[in-house]
Amino acid sequence: MSSDYQQVLDTIHRDVQPLLRQGKVASYIPQLSTVSPDHFGMAVFCLDGRTYTVGDADVKFSLQSITKLFAFALAFAREGDDVWKRVGREPSGNPFNSLVQLEYERGIPRNPFINAGALVITDILATRYVQAEIAVQQFARLLANEPAIDFDHTVAESERSTADRNTAMAHFMKDFGNFHNPVDIVIDAYCRQCSLTMTCAELAKAGSFLAQHGTIPWSGTQILDPSSSKRLNALMLTCGTYDAAGDFAYRVGLPAKSGVGGGILALMPGEASIAVWSPGLDEAGNSLAGTYALERFTTLTARSIF
Amino acid sequence: MSSDYQQVLDTIHRDVQPLLRQGKVASYIPQLSTVSPDHFGMAVFCLDGRTYTVGDADVKFSLQSITKLFAFALAFAREGDDVWKRVGREPSGNPFNSLVQLEYERGIPRNPFINAGALVITDILATRYVQAEIAVQQFARLLANEPAIDFDHTVAESERSTADRNTAMAHFMKDFGNFHNPVDIVIDAYCRQCSLTMTCAELAKAGSFLAQHGTIPWSGTQILDPSSSKRLNALMLTCGTYDAAGDFAYRVGLPAKSGVGGGILALMPGEASIAVWSPGLDEAGNSLAGTYALERFTTLTARSIF
Amino acid sequence: MSSDYQQVLDTIHRDVQPLLRQGKVASYIPQLSTVSPDHFGMAVFCLDGRTYTVGDADVKFSLQSITKLFAFALAFAREGDDVWKRVGREPSGNPFNSLVQLEYERGIPRNPFINAGALVITDILATRYVQAEIAVQQFARLLANEPAIDFDHTVAESERSTADRNTAMAHFMKDFGNFHNPVDIVIDAYCRQCSLTMTCAELAKAGSFLAQHGTIPWSGTQILDPSSSKRLNALMLTCGTYDAAGDFAYRVGLPAKSGVGGGILALMPGEASIAVWSPGLDEAGNSLAGTYALERFTTLTARSIF
Amino acid sequence: MSSDYQQVLDTIHRDVQPLLRQGKVASYIPQLSTVSPDHFGMAVFCLDGRTYTVGDADVKFSLQSITKLFAFALAFAREGDDVWKRVGREPSGNPFNSLVQLEYERGIPRNPFINAGALVITDILATRYVQAEIAVQQFARLLANEPAIDFDHTVAESERSTADRNTAMAHFMKDFGNFHNPVDIVIDAYCRQCSLTMTCAELAKAGSFLAQHGTIPWSGTQILDPSSSKRLNALMLTCGTYDAAGDFAYRVGLPAKSGVGGGILALMPGEASIAVWSPGLDEAGNSLAGTYALERFTTLTARSIF
Repeated sequence: MSSDYQQVLDTIHRDVQPLLRQGKVASYIPQLSTVSPDHFGMAVFCLDGRTYTVGDADVKFSLQSITKLFAFALAFAREGDDVWKRVGREPSGNPFNSLVQLEYERGIPRNPFINAGALVITDILATRYVQAEIAVQQFARLLANEPAIDFDHTVAESERSTADRNTAMAHFMKDFGNFHNPVDIVIDAYCRQCSLTMTCAELAKAGSFLAQHGTIPWSGTQILDPSSSKRLNALMLTCGTYDAAGDFAYRVGLPAKSGVGGGILALMPGEASIAVWSPGLDEAGNSLAGTYALERFTTLTARSIF
Repeated sequence: MSSDYQQVLDTIHRDVQPLLRQGKVASYIPQLSTVSPDHFGMAVFCLDGRTYTVGDADVKFSLQSITKLFAFALAFAREGDDVWKRVGREPSGNPFNSLVQLEYERGIPRNPFINAGALVITDILATRYVQAEIAVQQFARLLANEPAIDFDHTVAESERSTADRNTAMAHFMKDFGNFHNPVDIVIDAYCRQCSLTMTCAELAKAGSFLAQHGTIPWSGTQILDPSSSKRLNALMLTCGTYDAAGDFAYRVGLPAKSGVGGGILALMPGEASIAVWSPGLDEAGNSLAGTYALERFTTLTARSIF
Repeated sequence: MSSDYQQVLDTIHRDVQPLLRQGKVASYIPQLSTVSPDHFGMAVFCLDGRTYTVGDADVKFSLQSITKLFAFALAFAREGDDVWKRVGREPSGNPFNSLVQLEYERGIPRNPFINAGALVITDILATRYVQAEIAVQQFARLLANEPAIDFDHTVAESERSTADRNTAMAHFMKDFGNFHNPVDIVIDAYCRQCSLTMTCAELAKAGSFLAQHGTIPWSGTQILDPSSSKRLNALMLTCGTYDAAGDFAYRVGLPAKSGVGGGILALMPGEASIAVWSPGLDEAGNSLAGTYALERFTTLTARSIF
Repeated sequence: MSSDYQQVLDTIHRDVQPLLRQGKVASYIPQLSTVSPDHFGMAVFCLDGRTYTVGDADVKFSLQSITKLFAFALAFAREGDDVWKRVGREPSGNPFNSLVQLEYERGIPRNPFINAGALVITDILATRYVQAEIAVQQFARLLANEPAIDFDHTVAESERSTADRNTAMAHFMKDFGNFHNPVDIVIDAYCRQCSLTMTCAELAKAGSFLAQHGTIPWSGTQILDPSSSKRLNALMLTCGTYDAAGDFAYRVGLPAKSGVGGGILALMPGEASIAVWSPGLDEAGNSLAGTYALERFTTLTARSIF
């Protein structure tokens, strides 16, 4: 079946063209706003090793919130169920950086994919590693089997200079006792972590262990046990695409994690991992053309987890 | 593989015994509180026609919110995407009967499975049918292939006498223009609809069309097209278990709809539908032993959608 | 000093002219929206019996929320501190008809001057009197020494037909156990009560007992003891002008109660009561020219309670 | 009349004894929790120069939030109505350090007496003065005519070490553009400012300009013009006692500002200023015995602004 994927990708590449300029490139970080909205890339990494790509699949882009997936997977692999003492696993039901819910729930973020939750995860990693962001980088290099995965220091600095809301959240959680390291150090690590860049081809490869029940397909290295991997996929489905998780599940029907850089990593458990990138965002902060591309993909291949 | 299901059910039946008295039987409706917490029943309806049952799988119980699934499926089948003008499809992120979010979102309930959303769905049916609750009953009879699916009038009256919060929500939505029929009539229909009773065996059968891509397995009658059926499953996964959808997906990993009567309907797309019933509820209002039983089921069979 | 009041009123009358068309006449009740925004009337009733008027001081207008003051004074006079078991006495800090706070505070409205609180007060009166609205009417007639204070039935019916939000709140409070009579009966009484009409001259007279420490100046009839009267004035200052109580106190510096009909009753304790009417409202729902007129009055006479 | 004040104070001193151990000494700052709850002091400064005192009226205590009044008066005197571009003047209707409202209102605190608003005021002062806290100290010395008003550095450091919530709020407002100086510098100044100590006698004297229409009684120095002074009194009445402003106005009926150190400054415009201190707090964070003492004072002297 996977032999048809190239044709599917080509069709999608053609179909998304009218959408490329309809989204809005993220502007809250000055550096991100300079990326052209015309980019579109997509890559499918099948568990049997075959890879299909189209468009700008080899252009690096800023992972942003997609790094929350890698950071969480690393923390989950190391700490196990202890992570759930510090963060919940329910959809947020509110815009992704709201403080209201955090106050209502006494400093425990709803899930590790909203900003507050991701800050707690970085705080957990900062307790275990000298430099949390380097740990995430090394982990991403391992997953993608690619030593050239690096930070974009200009983006990191740009993000650092507009980090007041994240800093507020960190101090707020510290007030509730749910933040253990110095705020400045964790915010620094978090901003650097978010600035990691990958190509679609690399990202699809890096996510493939989650399609393979927690084990890296080409090396057999087990990152998470099958049950934990399944659970992380469930978490992506209910919480992975900001405040639009319900709509995304409805339209696409695959576990996924998105970032405001315009990238989305989606999974077909037991079969393949898919990465798509297009910088124009919809109102919820997910790639507009990217979401459409994934919706088309599941429709054209008649595949979804449902 | 399904030949092992009986053994799995027997194992689960034994394992859940210590949990039966740990949950709390729903008490907000006087009539529901009289049910013994010792009940436990489970039924698996495979798409090939085989059925496996254990415990009280043939005892009728009050469907309560599970009827929201049937009411929505009926409205969705009739109105198509027009239903999304009246209700959203995002997890609520708040206790299931909160008015706060309804005010914040200008009278559009977050999804059709919270009370406010279910009231809108009944309002939609009340516009199309003389008696909305009879339409839902007939639909349930068709789906279960069982003419003896009836209301429990004592439960309906009990619910009607404590319907102030639902009545408040209906008037509130009417104020926002999102309620078209007289409030009293819709509340009556809604309370009757919720009082429908089924056995686990009947419920598993009634839900099987959602495992079979929208088509009733034994008759070939298409209720929903495959895409709509897939989307409804996605909606169940993100919104079907009150404020615990994230946790339920994490632990069980199947689309499901629960009710405060203690029943849960879960789906294994392409394979089977599962009904479980045990009246003791956890803090989120889902059957405590029922959720555990489904978690065990996916663990023992190594099956989930993820 | 009060010999100058006529001159002050004449000055104010001239000064407010440019403001008359800047406010927005209430439109949520169809009947109210037909009133011309050009009206302006003002009356000062001094405790020594002298009365000063200007403009449309003898034109009847719809009291609306100002009746909440009379209803509360009646309930307070009859029930004493027991009223505080059913309603609070803190400013709302939110738009005047919000349900959020009501949910947060478990069905106890913040104060008797927001809609929810006024509904509870009418509910209290409905327990004591056969017809709560007639009791309020008779009370207003007594206070104003004027037998011709009547309902405007067209306004009452207009309000009744758009009472969904108030009905929602009543059912909501009933769900919390803070509503004792049938919702429909109380809503009817409430809508009629709100439709009472008075002139500025009548209203200033009717409010004068609150300037005279609880006793009607011309008859010596004690409505409230001095301590209760003082406390009711304090309540007006902190809660009497919707969500703008802070701003109103800052600018005007007198206890007052406003209504969306454009009327405001203000008090100079120990000296006089003042009524002003102009239908155009500001964003908070208070008479725009009326608030300005009172601000000018305290500035020109160098009088305020502060 | 004021000749009776000594007798009134003596009566109150006797009456409050049973209440002294009912309140709860503030514990959120370690240093504050060490103060004995048995203290009670009260001072009345009459505009004619006479002073009446009772109990511990000459013992220094931590002013805490009462310094918000001095800081605001200083900023208001310097900036005039420009302060209202940065902060509102409505009661908060929520616990005094809530972030929810701040988010809802886009970074503009509701009033200068909640923590967020006081931080903005300190930020304003930090723009104008090299050291905001020194400016407040000098201002307090001027108002009290007392050169020995100093910081308690141990308290300031204690507060600094638990300032995470205030730091969160400052960053949050900075994110909304409503914070101009480095957060750390302003938080430092704020914690020092809060640690200022005074005796009741000094505090009553320092507040007397607000009873004298903005002018220091003994020197004739005008701090605020009469209109501004009146307005500041109004602000104290509606916002000066945390989330209990309505209840305080109802019971006491005087403009006042309280602090968690157990002090309260209250004003009788045109007559006197009153300071009371007792460390035990009620649930809203106001001095329990102090509030009762002021309630008794207005009852025994039959004086209030209403």
